[in-house]
Amino acid sequence: MFRARSTEPSLSSQTETIEALFEGAARLASETLEENRAGRGPVVRRLSPEELGRALELELPAEGRGLECVLELAAKTLRYSVQTGHTRFTNQLFGGADPAAIVGEWIAALSNTSMYTFEAAPVGTLVELALLDKLNDFVGFSEGEGVFAPGGSISNLMCVLAARQRAFPHIKREGLRPEDRPVMFVSEESHYSLERAGLVAGIGTDGTVLVAVDEVGRMRPEELERSIASERAKGRTPFFVAATAGTTVAGAFDPIADIADVTESQGLWLHIDGSYGASALLSRRQRGLLAGCDRADSMTWNPHKMMGVPISSSATLMRTKGSLEETLGMHADYLFHGNSDNAYDLGDRSLQCGRRVDALKLWFSWQVQGDRGFEERIDALFGQAARFRELMEERPGFRLIREQEGTNVCFRYLHREKRGAEGSERDLHEHAATLAIRAQLAEEGSFLVNYASLDGAATFRFVAANPETGDEDLTALLEAIEAAD
Amino acid sequence: MFRARSTEPSLSSQTETIEALFEGAARLASETLEENRAGRGPVVRRLSPEELGRALELELPAEGRGLECVLELAAKTLRYSVQTGHTRFTNQLFGGADPAAIVGEWIAALSNTSMYTFEAAPVGTLVELALLDKLNDFVGFSEGEGVFAPGGSISNLMCVLAARQRAFPHIKREGLRPEDRPVMFVSEESHYSLERAGLVAGIGTDGTVLVAVDEVGRMRPEELERSIASERAKGRTPFFVAATAGTTVAGAFDPIADIADVTESQGLWLHIDGSYGASALLSRRQRGLLAGCDRADSMTWNPHKMMGVPISSSATLMRTKGSLEETLGMHADYLFHGNSDNAYDLGDRSLQCGRRVDALKLWFSWQVQGDRGFEERIDALFGQAARFRELMEERPGFRLIREQEGTNVCFRYLHREKRGAEGSERDLHEHAATLAIRAQLAEEGSFLVNYASLDGAATFRFVAANPETGDEDLTALLEAIEAAD
Repeated sequence: MFRARSTEPSLSSQTETIEALFEGAARLASETLEENRAGRGPVVRRLSPEELGRALELELPAEGRGLECVLELAAKTLRYSVQTGHTRFTNQLFGGADPAAIVGEWIAALSNTSMYTFEAAPVGTLVELALLDKLNDFVGFSEGEGVFAPGGSISNLMCVLAARQRAFPHIKREGLRPEDRPVMFVSEESHYSLERAGLVAGIGTDGTVLVAVDEVGRMRPEELERSIASERAKGRTPFFVAATAGTTVAGAFDPIADIADVTESQGLWLHIDGSYGASALLSRRQRGLLAGCDRADSMTWNPHKMMGVPISSSATLMRTKGSLEETLGMHADYLFHGNSDNAYDLGDRSLQCGRRVDALKLWFSWQVQGDRGFEERIDALFGQAARFRELMEERPGFRLIREQEGTNVCFRYLHREKRGAEGSERDLHEHAATLAIRAQLAEEGSFLVNYASLDGAATFRFVAANPETGDEDLTALLEAIEAAD
Repeated sequence: MFRARSTEPSLSSQTETIEALFEGAARLASETLEENRAGRGPVVRRLSPEELGRALELELPAEGRGLECVLELAAKTLRYSVQTGHTRFTNQLFGGADPAAIVGEWIAALSNTSMYTFEAAPVGTLVELALLDKLNDFVGFSEGEGVFAPGGSISNLMCVLAARQRAFPHIKREGLRPEDRPVMFVSEESHYSLERAGLVAGIGTDGTVLVAVDEVGRMRPEELERSIASERAKGRTPFFVAATAGTTVAGAFDPIADIADVTESQGLWLHIDGSYGASALLSRRQRGLLAGCDRADSMTWNPHKMMGVPISSSATLMRTKGSLEETLGMHADYLFHGNSDNAYDLGDRSLQCGRRVDALKLWFSWQVQGDRGFEERIDALFGQAARFRELMEERPGFRLIREQEGTNVCFRYLHREKRGAEGSERDLHEHAATLAIRAQLAEEGSFLVNYASLDGAATFRFVAANPETGDEDLTALLEAIEAAD
């Protein structure tokens, strides 16, 4: 049945253009990676939105420019992008650039299929299922299931919805009943996507109670217990508790086992937002941070953070098979044909219909790294954060603001001339210094390191996310902070 | 401040491996594209899940295999993937492979940044804003806004949430009040994601009324009006109507202007699910199918369907600036720092936090094609569907099941030996033939064409999605159907 159609001249000349284009893109990729891995060049070439708009020549033309313009566009894009693979980018919860995973993304784009059915995406489906099994093994969900989502926020939303479905089984058909009055619990340092998931689910931000944290940033289980009792007393129905493994700002790990004691005795759904920190499970040295996670009902785990694959890679994991389909399944017959392969279809477990093959990059990366490679990577990141803290504490003027539990180091710097200050005066000086120094480094493009508000004052947040960042980079960052105006 | 670090031997030898890897991937990409564009090779090498699992050697190893295995994995992935770029893939609402867009995806993966802030994704942010302006221009949202989402389902969900927020402004903080009793309206041939968006939003599938369609598959405006009145009489509060531009199965276009007359007089939010068909706006000949769309409040438009860029590319468009932030904004201060560039931040308009730079591929493609190139593409797809219908109607045994309005052709085939049958007997024979023939073609890998249930019987759905599919392919599909056992 297959044909060998004679190649028309126009097709063949376009074939050569496409070959040249792909080869050019591959060269650009190698060069970019090499520069960033060697720590050459700026972390960012900072322009204002107006300047950048001019430099990019954004306008979308009425008449096309032909394939020839693509490499120029690609080079321009890379030139003005933040070099998140640079060893001096410590700004977000991700960093580095895994060449195997990058090729995984290329192949996913090239094969361009959609994850709703095994029929449409046979390779993607099996790969995703294998990865979900592997991740569930690390969590301890021995009878678990899951699906990939386009990020931690959507994964968290799906888990809130699954919990809502379990607690209020009429929800799917009837919606919320007036007597339901659902209420959920997260720590006051949890990610905003959880509170917003409640909003989306129709319970409003008032339906989420923020539980107080300890001095490290960990949810206090006794406060959780108190909050649950207090909400029950008001006639509301607690249904969901999220523990966070790796909070966004401080990198703290909520005490999961203690929280599980509470949720189990109260009959509540326990979710773990491990978007950031679940990857600690890959390290025998660090996995104790998540002790008790196998007692949770669901978990979000983003390999695009600590595991270094490109955005987005987010696993939504469930302890119990069938939970996702029960929550989200719609059984559209134009898509799901009910034949034997349909047992593999992931569409009815997902909040999406069409869905990119995000699993491929992680599969490629896992084959290259193995469990051991990922373990080394995680250990290196924890080690790097500890090392940064050490180097920092050796220098006057720097102080740690939160105990470093994960791979974040939250610190402030007091300028030489202000060293006498104490209390709120010191906080004020540090606050101003953080903002000014951080902006100056970003402006120069020498370092990108983020800040957040902690205890009311701006605080540097260094994130160890790229294992190629070395002592030299760490020291240089501290020196640059000292040298800033 | 930039350094020139001496290159260590290990780094440099890895550099060579990475160069070879990227070059190999580029070669694989060229070869795959050439095969598919020339229509060589099977559309799919069909294996059962068990056979495929063995062929892929799925197992995730404890010890890594090193970068050397990546090209082998890539080749295997492509070998067993459905060739959605093949000229004989007419199975889904997307097809073809745009080399410029593919390179756009490569560069997005390589630069690996996240769309929450202008600071983290300066290029992606400006490119997305420029594309949103362009798409809004075509819709006629002259003061509009928008954001990209990971697919039509999530875009539709965001639009339902925006409508819910407008109608019930207390929702964001308080959640649904018992007296709210919201109800929404979609056509009975709309995509399941809309009904599920209602479920997610807390109103349940019972909160969505399915409005009857005409013989082409278009929502009947008089039925909509009747349904709204009937729901009001029950004490429920209508808040949202979705018209569909390009239904999933039949490719029908709901009569937007007539529906807008209803929603305007009733004070309801009008959404257009143009996931599939909004691209008709790019063609001067076809845009009349969406006449009145500028009167809608929101619209979903997926360039990853008719416009041929890889999945996912989905624009969520709003007629009124500020709608998305009002609905979803959480103002997390660790991310959104409140400086002047923050006016450009897209994070608070999105249901995601971290988000891939999906805009890049469409920007590359638009620069290459221009408005005119896209117009030619759309016209070619509509022309191809009309041509297929013509060729089909010339042959005995084939009949059209729905009038062809868009780029779908829904038809059935009656086997030579059964030609005498009529009425329900004919429907039964056609139903069985559709299932059997379709499965046989897929098994051979010669064609992938989908089917769905229409008027109670399985019906072939041919989708014109790849402009490189030619008359030769169309005729061959009809002949293959006739020749099947």
